[in-house]
Amino acid sequence: MFNKFKEIQKKQKAYGYVMGIVGWDSNTEAPRDSFEHRAEMMGIISSEMFKLSTSKDYQEAVYNCFDSIDELDNLQQREIKQAKKDLDKILKVPEDVFVEYRKTLTLAQRTWEEAKHKDDFEAFAPALDNIIQQNKKILEYIGYKDIPYNELLDDFEEGYTEKDYDLFFETLKKDLVPFVKEVLTNGKKIREDFITDVYPRGKQKEFVEYLMKVLNYDYNRGGLKESVHPFTWHTHSKDVRFTVRYLEDFVFSSIFAGIHELGHALYEQQVDSKLDYTNLGGGTSSGIHESQSRFYENIIGRSEEFWQVHYPKLKELFPKQLETVTLEEFVLGINRVEASFIRVEADELTYPLHILMRYEIEKDLFGNRLETKDLPRVWNEKMVEYLGIEPKNFAEGVLQDVHWSAGLFGYFPTYALGSAYAAQFYYTMKKELNFEQLILDDNIQAINEWLKEKIHQFGSSKTPKELLKEVTNEDFNPKYYVQYLKEKYSKLYL
Amino acid sequence: MFNKFKEIQKKQKAYGYVMGIVGWDSNTEAPRDSFEHRAEMMGIISSEMFKLSTSKDYQEAVYNCFDSIDELDNLQQREIKQAKKDLDKILKVPEDVFVEYRKTLTLAQRTWEEAKHKDDFEAFAPALDNIIQQNKKILEYIGYKDIPYNELLDDFEEGYTEKDYDLFFETLKKDLVPFVKEVLTNGKKIREDFITDVYPRGKQKEFVEYLMKVLNYDYNRGGLKESVHPFTWHTHSKDVRFTVRYLEDFVFSSIFAGIHELGHALYEQQVDSKLDYTNLGGGTSSGIHESQSRFYENIIGRSEEFWQVHYPKLKELFPKQLETVTLEEFVLGINRVEASFIRVEADELTYPLHILMRYEIEKDLFGNRLETKDLPRVWNEKMVEYLGIEPKNFAEGVLQDVHWSAGLFGYFPTYALGSAYAAQFYYTMKKELNFEQLILDDNIQAINEWLKEKIHQFGSSKTPKELLKEVTNEDFNPKYYVQYLKEKYSKLYL
Repeated sequence: MFNKFKEIQKKQKAYGYVMGIVGWDSNTEAPRDSFEHRAEMMGIISSEMFKLSTSKDYQEAVYNCFDSIDELDNLQQREIKQAKKDLDKILKVPEDVFVEYRKTLTLAQRTWEEAKHKDDFEAFAPALDNIIQQNKKILEYIGYKDIPYNELLDDFEEGYTEKDYDLFFETLKKDLVPFVKEVLTNGKKIREDFITDVYPRGKQKEFVEYLMKVLNYDYNRGGLKESVHPFTWHTHSKDVRFTVRYLEDFVFSSIFAGIHELGHALYEQQVDSKLDYTNLGGGTSSGIHESQSRFYENIIGRSEEFWQVHYPKLKELFPKQLETVTLEEFVLGINRVEASFIRVEADELTYPLHILMRYEIEKDLFGNRLETKDLPRVWNEKMVEYLGIEPKNFAEGVLQDVHWSAGLFGYFPTYALGSAYAAQFYYTMKKELNFEQLILDDNIQAINEWLKEKIHQFGSSKTPKELLKEVTNEDFNPKYYVQYLKEKYSKLYL
Repeated sequence: MFNKFKEIQKKQKAYGYVMGIVGWDSNTEAPRDSFEHRAEMMGIISSEMFKLSTSKDYQEAVYNCFDSIDELDNLQQREIKQAKKDLDKILKVPEDVFVEYRKTLTLAQRTWEEAKHKDDFEAFAPALDNIIQQNKKILEYIGYKDIPYNELLDDFEEGYTEKDYDLFFETLKKDLVPFVKEVLTNGKKIREDFITDVYPRGKQKEFVEYLMKVLNYDYNRGGLKESVHPFTWHTHSKDVRFTVRYLEDFVFSSIFAGIHELGHALYEQQVDSKLDYTNLGGGTSSGIHESQSRFYENIIGRSEEFWQVHYPKLKELFPKQLETVTLEEFVLGINRVEASFIRVEADELTYPLHILMRYEIEKDLFGNRLETKDLPRVWNEKMVEYLGIEPKNFAEGVLQDVHWSAGLFGYFPTYALGSAYAAQFYYTMKKELNFEQLILDDNIQAINEWLKEKIHQFGSSKTPKELLKEVTNEDFNPKYYVQYLKEKYSKLYL
C-alpha cells in the first residue's frame, strides 16, 4: 500500500515539477501576451493534479497506510501523516466552495492593484471583506483548534497558535517598542549621501555574483535572474534559483535582497536530496525559512565583520561612489534605523513592529472584533502607537501589502518569528562556533555546514518546534531576539 | 464526437505546453545538476501524454469523426485527417518497439558525442547501424509509399517523395555544381580582416535587439535569450522565443543566426491565433519553415539594400572595427563563398551541396545500396566531387552532424528545399511588391504582411505543395533557386 502511495505521489511530483517550471518562467520571462493561453493550459494541468490528489486510489492508499502506520519507519510515518493532513483538508471542503474562493482571489488581486493605484480603500473593501468571509466559511469546513485563526497560523507555522504568538508579540511590545523609540529619538547623525548615489547595474550584478561565491551557493544547482520582486524558487534540492532586482539609485536593494534570497536558496540546496521524492522536501515552514534568509541577510550580511572582509571588493567595483566612505560609515549606513511606512523597506529594528500591528489586526478580524471598514483607522492608530508616524494615504498604509488580497492570512507573523528564530539559532551557534572569526576568515562555508547539519538537511521532516528544541536545547524563546537587537543597536546607536 | 475530440486534444495541448516550457528551460537555463530529476519527471508527464493520445476514448473520437468526416467543415476535416494520420502511426508500431528505439537513441546520442570528440567513426558505427536497422523495422510496421525512405521524407515534408527530391537535386547537380566551381576558382579578393575582429558581446546584443525592431518581431509575444546553438521555440502564436549566441571573434554569427531565427519566429508569430487550439498551429513543414528563415537571413539579410540602411547602425556600435570597411567590402564579406567542411558554417552558395551529398547518402542507406561501414569513404568522395576538398578527420566529415544520432533521416533535404522555396516565393513577391524599395525604405513590415497573408497565417492547415501552388501559381520548381543564386553571385563575383 505504501508503494501505491509512492507511485501516485511521484505523479503528483511530476505535475508539481512542471507547474513549478511554468511558474518560474511566467514570473521571470514569459512574454506578456502569453498570459491567457498559459492560464488555460495550467487550468487543465492543475485540474489533472487535483483529480489525482483526490482520486479513490490515492485516498485508499493514504488512509490504509494511516490505519497501519506502525508498520512504517519514522520517515514514512511522517510522510503519511502529512499526506493525510493535506487530504483531509481537501476532502472536507466542497469543491464548489474552493472554486468560488479561487475565483474571488483572482478578481481581488486586480481590484487591490487598482485600488492601491487610485489610493481608494473603499474600492477594495468589499473584495477584502468577501475574502475574509469566505475564509471563515472554509475554516468552518476544515475545523480548527479553539479559534479559527489558529488554523490559519498552523498553515504557515505548524504547531503555532494565537497563544504562542501572543506570548511572542507581547514580549516585543513590552521590551522592544520602548527601545526602538529610544533609538529613533537618539538623533545620531548617519551619513546618507552614498546610499542613494548611482550604482550602475552591470557592476551591481557583478557584486551579487561575487556574493554567490562568498556564500557558497552552488550554481550547478541553481541560477540567478532578475524580476520586479526578488524571490527564491525551487522544484527540488538540485534546482534552486533566485532573483534580484537592480535599482541604480539604491544599491542596498540588490545586495541585501540578494543575500536574503541566497539564504532561502542555501536552505533549499542543503536539504537532503533523498527527500526530493517525498512530501518532506523543502523548508519546513515559513518561519524557519525566513529565519535562514534573515540570518544571512542581517546577522551575517549586516555585520561589521562581514564588511571588513568584503567592503574592499565593493569599493573596487564602485570607487567613485565609495571613495570617501569609511567602513564605519558604511556599516552604519546599512543599519540605518528610521520610522517608515512601507514594511518591505523597513530596517531590521523597526521591521517587527510592522508585523506586530498586522498580527493584531488579523487576529481581531478573525476573532470578529474588527470590521473590514474600520481597517484604515485602526491601521493608522497602530502606526502612530508603535512607530510614531501616520500614513498620509492608503497606498503607504493599509493597502501596501499584496498578502490579504491573495487570501494570505496568518502568514505575516512568521516574518517576525523568523527573525526571532534566527536570533535564537545565533546564540546557540556562537556557543559552538567562533562565529565572528569565521566571517573574518571568509569561511561562510563552515556556517553553512553547521546550518545544514542542524537544520537544512531535514527539510520538512521536522516541525519548527522540534527543530528549535533540538538545535537550541530549549523551546522557542523571544528573549534572544530582543537581546540580539538591543546588543547590536545599542552598540551602533547609543 | 468532434467535441469529445476537441476536449481530449485540449488536454494534449496542456501536456504539450508544459513539456514545451520545460524544454525551453532545460535548453537555456536549467542548472546542470537538475538533469536527472527532470528526466524522471518528464518521463512521467510524457507517459501520461502517451496514455491520453492512445486512449480508447481518443481513438473512438478520432475514428468516429473520420467515418463521418463529410459532416465537418474544411478546417475540422483537416484536423481529423491529421489526428488520424498521427494515431494510425502510433497504433501500428508495438509499444515495446518504440520504447526500444527511444532507448537506442538516448544512448546513441552520447556515443556520437564521444566518437566525434575522439574522432573515431568505428566507435559510432554500430550505434548508427542499429538506429538505421530499427528505423527500417519501424517503417515496415508503419508502411510506406513504394519505398521506405518516402515515409521518412513525408514525415518532414508532407507529400514529398524520393522522386520529387531526385528532380530537385538533379537540377542542383547539373546547374549549380559547375557554377559553384566557377565562383570558387574565380580568385576574387575579398577583404577578410574585419570579419574575425573582436566585437564585444554587449554591443552585439544591442545590434540583435535593433534587428528585432527592424524586422518587427513582437517582443510582447516572445523573448530573446542565449544558448550554445541558436534556436526558435514556440508553444503557441503568442509565445515564440528565440536564442542566439555571441561569438566575440565572429560577429556574423549573432547577426545572421539572429535574422535566421527571427525568420522562424516571425512565421510562428503570424500564424492565425485561432489555430492555437487545433493540431494545425505552427509552421506546416520543415521545408516551409526553413524557407522563411532563409528568406529573411539570405534574401533580405544578406542583400546590399538591407545594409545600405543598417550598416550605419552597425558602424555606430563598432566604430573601430568597421572604420575603414566600405559598404561594398562589408556586403562582399557577408556573402563570401568558400569550399568548407562544416555544413552549419557553409555560405549560402555552397550550402545546398552539403545537403545534396547527405541526401544521396540517406537515400542509398535506406535503399540498401550503402552500408554504414562505408559511410566515411563515400562521404569523402562526395566532398571531393562537389566541393573539391577532402576532410582530414571524421569530426569535420561524416561525424559532424547530430541528426543521424538522433534518428533524424529525411530531415536534411528540407534544408535545401527551404532555400529553393524561398527563391520561388521571392520571384513571386517581386511581381507583387517593390521588394528592393521596401527594404531601402526600412519597411520590412510590408514584406511580413505579404508573407502573413500568403503563407504564415495558415499554419499547417495547408500542405507545402498547396502553399507553393497557391502563392506562386505553379508547383515547386527548382529553377528559381538556381536562377536566384546565379544572379546574385554572378553580380558579386564574376
